[in-house]
Amino acid sequence: MSNSFGFLFKLTTFGESHGVAIGGIIDGCPAGIKLDLQEIQKELDRRKPGQSKITTQRKEPDEVIFLSGIFEGKTTGTSIGFQILNTNQKSKDYSHNTDVYRPSHADYTYAKKYGIRDHRGGGRSSARETANWIVGGAIAKQYLKDIKINAFTSSVGEIFLEKPYQKLDFSKVESNAVRCPDQDTAKKMIERIEIIKKEGDTIGGTVTCVIQNVPVGLGEPIFDKLHAQLGKAMLSINAVKGFEYGSGFCGAKMKGSEHNDLFKADGFTKSNLSGGIQGGISNGMDIYFRVAFKPVATIMQKQETIDADGKIVTMQGKGRHDPCVVPRAVPIIEALSAMVLADFLLLNKTR
Amino acid sequence: MSNSFGFLFKLTTFGESHGVAIGGIIDGCPAGIKLDLQEIQKELDRRKPGQSKITTQRKEPDEVIFLSGIFEGKTTGTSIGFQILNTNQKSKDYSHNTDVYRPSHADYTYAKKYGIRDHRGGGRSSARETANWIVGGAIAKQYLKDIKINAFTSSVGEIFLEKPYQKLDFSKVESNAVRCPDQDTAKKMIERIEIIKKEGDTIGGTVTCVIQNVPVGLGEPIFDKLHAQLGKAMLSINAVKGFEYGSGFCGAKMKGSEHNDLFKADGFTKSNLSGGIQGGISNGMDIYFRVAFKPVATIMQKQETIDADGKIVTMQGKGRHDPCVVPRAVPIIEALSAMVLADFLLLNKTR
Amino acid sequence: MSNSFGFLFKLTTFGESHGVAIGGIIDGCPAGIKLDLQEIQKELDRRKPGQSKITTQRKEPDEVIFLSGIFEGKTTGTSIGFQILNTNQKSKDYSHNTDVYRPSHADYTYAKKYGIRDHRGGGRSSARETANWIVGGAIAKQYLKDIKINAFTSSVGEIFLEKPYQKLDFSKVESNAVRCPDQDTAKKMIERIEIIKKEGDTIGGTVTCVIQNVPVGLGEPIFDKLHAQLGKAMLSINAVKGFEYGSGFCGAKMKGSEHNDLFKADGFTKSNLSGGIQGGISNGMDIYFRVAFKPVATIMQKQETIDADGKIVTMQGKGRHDPCVVPRAVPIIEALSAMVLADFLLLNKTR
Amino acid sequence: MSNSFGFLFKLTTFGESHGVAIGGIIDGCPAGIKLDLQEIQKELDRRKPGQSKITTQRKEPDEVIFLSGIFEGKTTGTSIGFQILNTNQKSKDYSHNTDVYRPSHADYTYAKKYGIRDHRGGGRSSARETANWIVGGAIAKQYLKDIKINAFTSSVGEIFLEKPYQKLDFSKVESNAVRCPDQDTAKKMIERIEIIKKEGDTIGGTVTCVIQNVPVGLGEPIFDKLHAQLGKAMLSINAVKGFEYGSGFCGAKMKGSEHNDLFKADGFTKSNLSGGIQGGISNGMDIYFRVAFKPVATIMQKQETIDADGKIVTMQGKGRHDPCVVPRAVPIIEALSAMVLADFLLLNKTR
Repeated sequence: MSNSFGFLFKLTTFGESHGVAIGGIIDGCPAGIKLDLQEIQKELDRRKPGQSKITTQRKEPDEVIFLSGIFEGKTTGTSIGFQILNTNQKSKDYSHNTDVYRPSHADYTYAKKYGIRDHRGGGRSSARETANWIVGGAIAKQYLKDIKINAFTSSVGEIFLEKPYQKLDFSKVESNAVRCPDQDTAKKMIERIEIIKKEGDTIGGTVTCVIQNVPVGLGEPIFDKLHAQLGKAMLSINAVKGFEYGSGFCGAKMKGSEHNDLFKADGFTKSNLSGGIQGGISNGMDIYFRVAFKPVATIMQKQETIDADGKIVTMQGKGRHDPCVVPRAVPIIEALSAMVLADFLLLNKTR
Repeated sequence: MSNSFGFLFKLTTFGESHGVAIGGIIDGCPAGIKLDLQEIQKELDRRKPGQSKITTQRKEPDEVIFLSGIFEGKTTGTSIGFQILNTNQKSKDYSHNTDVYRPSHADYTYAKKYGIRDHRGGGRSSARETANWIVGGAIAKQYLKDIKINAFTSSVGEIFLEKPYQKLDFSKVESNAVRCPDQDTAKKMIERIEIIKKEGDTIGGTVTCVIQNVPVGLGEPIFDKLHAQLGKAMLSINAVKGFEYGSGFCGAKMKGSEHNDLFKADGFTKSNLSGGIQGGISNGMDIYFRVAFKPVATIMQKQETIDADGKIVTMQGKGRHDPCVVPRAVPIIEALSAMVLADFLLLNKTR
Repeated sequence: MSNSFGFLFKLTTFGESHGVAIGGIIDGCPAGIKLDLQEIQKELDRRKPGQSKITTQRKEPDEVIFLSGIFEGKTTGTSIGFQILNTNQKSKDYSHNTDVYRPSHADYTYAKKYGIRDHRGGGRSSARETANWIVGGAIAKQYLKDIKINAFTSSVGEIFLEKPYQKLDFSKVESNAVRCPDQDTAKKMIERIEIIKKEGDTIGGTVTCVIQNVPVGLGEPIFDKLHAQLGKAMLSINAVKGFEYGSGFCGAKMKGSEHNDLFKADGFTKSNLSGGIQGGISNGMDIYFRVAFKPVATIMQKQETIDADGKIVTMQGKGRHDPCVVPRAVPIIEALSAMVLADFLLLNKTR
Repeated sequence: MSNSFGFLFKLTTFGESHGVAIGGIIDGCPAGIKLDLQEIQKELDRRKPGQSKITTQRKEPDEVIFLSGIFEGKTTGTSIGFQILNTNQKSKDYSHNTDVYRPSHADYTYAKKYGIRDHRGGGRSSARETANWIVGGAIAKQYLKDIKINAFTSSVGEIFLEKPYQKLDFSKVESNAVRCPDQDTAKKMIERIEIIKKEGDTIGGTVTCVIQNVPVGLGEPIFDKLHAQLGKAMLSINAVKGFEYGSGFCGAKMKGSEHNDLFKADGFTKSNLSGGIQGGISNGMDIYFRVAFKPVATIMQKQETIDADGKIVTMQGKGRHDPCVVPRAVPIIEALSAMVLADFLLLNKTR
């Protein structure tokens, strides 16, 4: 149950950070979709480690291998099995963690819940899992076609991208290492991350995602509202602490007379504080939301912590970790969004 | 699918604001729980309209009638059917809305999605549905016993409750109309709402919820993380625009060296920026989260909008509506939290 | 979980035999279906007790009341809540059963599983629940339109209807008390049941169901094959011991050269031992299956049994029970079939 | 959706007969189970082709490779990914089938449903998929421990094993090629199959399965009854046409006074026509059921059929196929039974 996401377009996954492979099964992908496998690999490459000096230097090819469900380049309607081999694990980087619970990691909770854990690189709790999501999302994207999903880094620490998304050129997202489409802000963010990295520290940030060309009618009230499912998806990403859409937390300070989105004659609205969703159902306006990431817990500084016996020990991160997870989260957020939309598109065919 | 919530402790609901009744079925509630029916009714009374001068003056008894699943005062393990009659609908208050799409309501999206809608009082999209959730949550609370769930109003418009929750006396939540446990802040919030009401306007706000005495191990990685399911639940509530837990959006500005929760020898942590959850699994510390509500869309001021033919019309709210939805949302948030926790407690028995 | 049936067209139910009411919620019924409520009541009347001298003399109006999801005569796409009041329970008929486990009933297993049970009339295990299914099925039938579902009694004890279904006139099913479309066989069956009834005994039988005009493509391999879901539905009916479709158990004696259904140029097949389904997917030919019912366990003869303390006691059925459940099972089988087909029709829209 | 089986112990699968690999993900397997991997491989070997002269001569090692969820020999509670490479496909055996719909196969229905199909060896509709189920079942068996599941061939064509199961020695099942524990009957069955094989024909049969030491209380009324889920599982196996448990279709001929299972003082029953289940819940007696298999559709004789253009063509089976599928179905039935029981054991922990 807990390793599946989606109702009709459903991804089920497996894999530990340092096991043989990670992978998954996509069930419910419609038949007859011509898949561009290179596009899928390209999305994986956006997420993979070692892309720039501000991400972890760990290098893994992260090559996806499809095992079923595709025939002569097209989906067949049967389940799509895939895997990504774990080729570059340095388990010895983690051997010092065997019995140590790293602070603000899932080591302790996994150990207590299951009574056993694969400690190597965080095992199942590692963000390596998100590579599986990229595969699911990349296929969903090819199904969605006209719906455009663009995520980008909107803050790093205290440095915020101040421009409204309407003034951004999304084609610039991939032009810098931090994935912020505004070059000036991007520069500041990168500088901030470089300093943090030198300090052996890490820093949080936010990603904003904009979904455009969404048809009216996606989302299922009462308990599967479009934004609720998007929120759940985002809150599934490692290190995420918050989700807001449309006016978000700012909307909580506003008055109704300011906040209401008045209609134009064509059914679209003049403003869009609602964020493209009313009553859990898309209204045809842009959907936009923001996701908050805490700073990565693994820092290159000495910290006190405990081991499995409750003994206080001193530890220091030795693996190859990101000083700021946000740039690599951008494609993950797009992937999850694509899966959510594909799912609701399919569901909406039955209403 | 969309009218059910939960995996093992599952609530399925029905009902329109102005239909015969609303109600639901609770499936998966364990057998042998001695139910205090008055406690359940008391929770409903906390949510019901007409409680004070700062809520809608609509008066409905909101009396729950149980139809099955309870025998000689105890749950039998079979599904619990219940209903709440709609006794005080004034459909004529809504007769002017027949073909009019109210701004920032779900009228337009329901009409477009389904091609038909029960326009009376918002039909299925009305927050009246949340009375069903209270019933489910009140039963879940009785199953949870030792786990304590306390929600309270933490902001109204720009007025924020500044104290950390550790300094609050939760027993004071019900002592004022706005459900803020700090009397000084409560007074300011009430004054603010009274002014807003006089203006025929509405205002947003936030609710904070604290869950204590949670055993270690609740929550199911990868896709049913405890906070992700809490987030989805909260985002299902009408008018909610955001959810954050632990350090939330503030955490996105922090450094890892500041944010990490260092362990004590007993497995608990010195700080709790994580919000009681690591890797989607409870770690035994307090869980706390914050929910953002936009201002109620129905205002007593004239607004331009469109009807089903796309004609611009002028409308003015005439029903009995809340100037600020937040106080009545407090028991709803507790109810959903209780259902989520009951569900994960049951799931955790199978691990 | 266990009180819901279906994926997209989903029925969730509640209710004990002698509680306040039984009822359910239909989720996923498409919007805009004009419902003929009298047709629904007519299906309920086919199932209700007291219809003829060969069924139980218990009389209940079994009137369905719809509470939501229907507006101005049409489905709105929201969940449809309904209930059927229990008006004519004679609980004193069952008061002698308080602590007694009736042989071949679910009394013992419910008591052991849940530690508590509503003993009145079998509580949740009573076949009264099937009235809920009739409501779900009657709505599904109105959605299906062109697909024709006809069930009929094909055997009572050793008396078999020998004619192939192609030679039967389904319009005659309702013309006799036993619901066998062949009048000669029906007469023999009725006589058999009358003798059994006089003996204070009961007898088993089978029902055959034929589904026609099914489009090609319904059913979802691997684990939701059309016949597997039909089988599960039928095995959910009280007293059912077996299910076979197409050639069924006879097919297990045959050779491949005899059993294969050869194609005609139009894609239909010359024979139809497959029963209209290949690889779990409908092929456009008639679907037909047979369901075996054991004799009703409550007999009007003295039997030894045990009570909750394991003491041997003597009991004799005193309630108003059917000597043969098969005639009243006919509409139940049609109802479940209709729900299964509606569900797969919806699912197939997403492929 | 359609590629998953189970609620809490859940298997999701992928794979075509002639693709790169088949495999699956087991979600919900409890943590801390010490797995005997050789036992799992042994179960696969029981199912694999080429075991004897009465099965297909196709030889595949069918070696399972585990990719996750197991650490230092024990399950970790995370999802278990596995795969079985397709090493010995002779696609050219099937190249003549490209556009030809084999009679009584799923070729036609897959083509019509999806508009595209992997024709090689039946693609996803091939019984090769059942190797995945064996893996899931073999792990479930190791979780079940004390519950004993024994299936055996109970008929081949007209040759029936006449002895009641209580008189059989299950340890003899593997002692002959047909998997019938009675040597005399086994001999007759094998002779029958050899003759059929020489004729280039195939023959049907039945498998009986007996499940012992089942605790009281497994199974979830109303819609997830233990026998209904077993029935659905069995009806998912390729070529299955019927399922009956306990008295089955014979019970439909009986009288209540003959059929009722009278209690002994210890709660067990004197007879067991109920087949170990009352009201969908296990009662502690043996569970037994019978599954009917039609003859394999691929015969080595000339048959007329159609191609994708509706043209009549002549075809003759050339692949390596089983003359009787029943012996190889025995471990499959055990595997599915084990998964169903593991699932209900877990569910029952939540009641």
